[in-house]
Amino acid sequence: MIDKVISYIDQNKDKAVDRLKDFLRIPSISTDPERKGDTRKAGEWVLKLLTDCGVKAEIIETKGHPCIFADTGPVDGAPTVLIYGHYDVQPTGDESLWKSPPFEPTVRDGQIYARGSADDKGQVLTHLLAAEAWMKAGGKLSCRVKFLIEGEEEIGSPNLEPLITKLKDRLACQYVALSDTPKFDKTTPAITYGTKGLVYKEIILTGPKQNLHSGSYGGTLTNPGNAACTIIAALRDADNRVTIPGFYDDVKSLTDEERKRLKELPFDEKGYLEAMGAPALIGEKGYSTIERRWARPTLDVNGMYGGFMGVGASTVIPAKVGIKVSMRIVPNQDPEKINKAFEETVKKLCPPGVKMEILTHSYCAAYAAPTDSPGMRAAAAALKAGFGKAPVFIREGGTLPILPLFKRELGADSIMIGFCMPDCNAHGPNEFFGLDDLHNGTRTAAHFLSALAKAR
Amino acid sequence: MIDKVISYIDQNKDKAVDRLKDFLRIPSISTDPERKGDTRKAGEWVLKLLTDCGVKAEIIETKGHPCIFADTGPVDGAPTVLIYGHYDVQPTGDESLWKSPPFEPTVRDGQIYARGSADDKGQVLTHLLAAEAWMKAGGKLSCRVKFLIEGEEEIGSPNLEPLITKLKDRLACQYVALSDTPKFDKTTPAITYGTKGLVYKEIILTGPKQNLHSGSYGGTLTNPGNAACTIIAALRDADNRVTIPGFYDDVKSLTDEERKRLKELPFDEKGYLEAMGAPALIGEKGYSTIERRWARPTLDVNGMYGGFMGVGASTVIPAKVGIKVSMRIVPNQDPEKINKAFEETVKKLCPPGVKMEILTHSYCAAYAAPTDSPGMRAAAAALKAGFGKAPVFIREGGTLPILPLFKRELGADSIMIGFCMPDCNAHGPNEFFGLDDLHNGTRTAAHFLSALAKAR
Repeated sequence: MIDKVISYIDQNKDKAVDRLKDFLRIPSISTDPERKGDTRKAGEWVLKLLTDCGVKAEIIETKGHPCIFADTGPVDGAPTVLIYGHYDVQPTGDESLWKSPPFEPTVRDGQIYARGSADDKGQVLTHLLAAEAWMKAGGKLSCRVKFLIEGEEEIGSPNLEPLITKLKDRLACQYVALSDTPKFDKTTPAITYGTKGLVYKEIILTGPKQNLHSGSYGGTLTNPGNAACTIIAALRDADNRVTIPGFYDDVKSLTDEERKRLKELPFDEKGYLEAMGAPALIGEKGYSTIERRWARPTLDVNGMYGGFMGVGASTVIPAKVGIKVSMRIVPNQDPEKINKAFEETVKKLCPPGVKMEILTHSYCAAYAAPTDSPGMRAAAAALKAGFGKAPVFIREGGTLPILPLFKRELGADSIMIGFCMPDCNAHGPNEFFGLDDLHNGTRTAAHFLSALAKAR
Repeated sequence: MIDKVISYIDQNKDKAVDRLKDFLRIPSISTDPERKGDTRKAGEWVLKLLTDCGVKAEIIETKGHPCIFADTGPVDGAPTVLIYGHYDVQPTGDESLWKSPPFEPTVRDGQIYARGSADDKGQVLTHLLAAEAWMKAGGKLSCRVKFLIEGEEEIGSPNLEPLITKLKDRLACQYVALSDTPKFDKTTPAITYGTKGLVYKEIILTGPKQNLHSGSYGGTLTNPGNAACTIIAALRDADNRVTIPGFYDDVKSLTDEERKRLKELPFDEKGYLEAMGAPALIGEKGYSTIERRWARPTLDVNGMYGGFMGVGASTVIPAKVGIKVSMRIVPNQDPEKINKAFEETVKKLCPPGVKMEILTHSYCAAYAAPTDSPGMRAAAAALKAGFGKAPVFIREGGTLPILPLFKRELGADSIMIGFCMPDCNAHGPNEFFGLDDLHNGTRTAAHFLSALAKAR
């Protein structure tokens, strides 16, 4: 049966690219209120694909963007897997930095360039196409497969928790499988077993009621721009350690076994640096690049704005400035505790003469899964079959808020199967997904359902 | 003769308001390349007013926006005064903060609201209308009056120095008079005898070649946003003193006489704070608000930008951030020396892993004039006649790059006659100029020419 499924996938290889392009043309930016309609449209696109191949699927409304839920129905003696993914995408950022428009998918050198190509439309599509292939080639699936494809991942999934709690029974599964992580390198697929958590804050400082002439008023009031810099600068020391009291208290250190495995990975530091295009690899003192990336908490400015931001000079004291800053946290750190410690610290650091407002954009825990479960073994076998090479087990610096939530509500561990390139420019300009990875990913997703049916 | 002139001004009071509105409708933002044509148009407006009343005037081209020059011709036994002003304006900033559009002049409660109303179109117009009144009421002027009205004051007058050097002989004068400073308060006119200088810099930090996913890359490279905050924070200490080595070395302290005069001014701290709308009056330790404002050097952030600046959250590490920062310097500080010290300091403060570019937008020395010259006495008498109250002598935190230049090239001291309100919102939203101040200012400008003719 699996041979027929794979053969169907191989025969429809080119058609799959066209369908990905259709999906990518929908500008489903979930953070942008003006894109509300487009975001829904991307969800409806997923619904139609599933419905068209005979899978029972439906739209589940939330307070924000809707979820697509599907269920292929029970299969005797086989486990149930919930495929999770998201159809929403990040904002484009400065569009002038894109070589081709972010919502006009363009193939160059075997890669498809568009916002959402890797994160997550291209990757989620592999699972949809695999299910379709099983349905079309054989009329049924080897396991019970449920789909939960949401539209608010890029804004921290604010409405998913109540939905999952409410639909607990319908979502019941042994494993969650998802593809929203990268391969290890061009030729090596990867299973990601741990992610960082996220606490994303924004500090807004206001001083005078409006921008003031810096000559007429300078020296007589606290400048919100200077104050913001003073606060942010004090959050890290010269060794790039975060100075928030208690920040590292609950950090779960890497085991010796994990550290050994990380050291053995053929990590190409030079290639990594070149892909980033930064002058040097720098970070928290005492840890390797991979350790800092996957297993150490961080604090980063994500954006800053205020005062005169145009070309040239305007001599104003800004009425208001804002700094967006986020912390990536690791297993065992409590996001609520970190959030509170952050707020207390910046309040203490805030100089007199400005008012501070603190926004919380999202916060979520880290996650780590056992690497020796039957599901993990099935995923490893599927990747070997799909890509022709055994995967490595890695961790990830990014955040998937859904993972700790699934564990808590459904009792299910998550299996993260990575198909995209590590330097795929997710969240930056010129995001891309390889056409080979689309194809091999779809084959892997199909093999996974076959292997999982037999896994014990 | 002066009676006839004043009577002419009084009769044409309403017409003067209409003419100011015409002038203000021209969006002559000199820093904006798209407003190049409009900026020139404002210069031509000035030219036409002078030419129409029989004064010989001409456009002098520069590499940037042109200057308007006029000369009423020699008057036996009377001194020559050069009236300096500018027809260009600041950018509008966020237009949503304006109660009426910045280039649709609107009168509310006896004040005209528009960008450039106080700085400097409304004020420069008083001198143009005074000259017109002398010409129309008497056919000639009491002194030889030259006009130099430029279009690049708001961008630091980059092309004025070569022009003045070149036209030294044609510009020759005993005094320069200008109105680009405020009154002391609503009812008290002022003569400003000192201004601060300006060194305006922009630091641009670049890290990775493009915005990166803060999860996938965080912790492995220097974040330009964090780096920028670290640098800016280190430029001032907790007492709000600038930490750049040598920064205060050449500062000319206030004399005991000046300090006494400042203390005696009926400065309304509470009103000043309310006008700013800031939570508190704060600044360099050990100095009064007025001392900090007029006689102590400052360092202020004017603008900051980089990374994700939209509403909500995007988890990027910014590829590039910029901070605009300017220093106001005081008499005897050398702008070149301060500029160099700033650059050396920020280079030393820049952490590894980012590239720093430093831009210089403008730099210029401070200025202080003697307060006991015949010209100053004529100005004081004119203000008393025009406003019905003797002026106070004050200093100013703003910068007029032209003043040290006139002193050096023409040997002439400058007399700054202030007609606008101290809280006129120059450079901010809702800039305004009082209609009474337009009228009394025009009367003062006319009296000044009469008094100056007799001053010894």
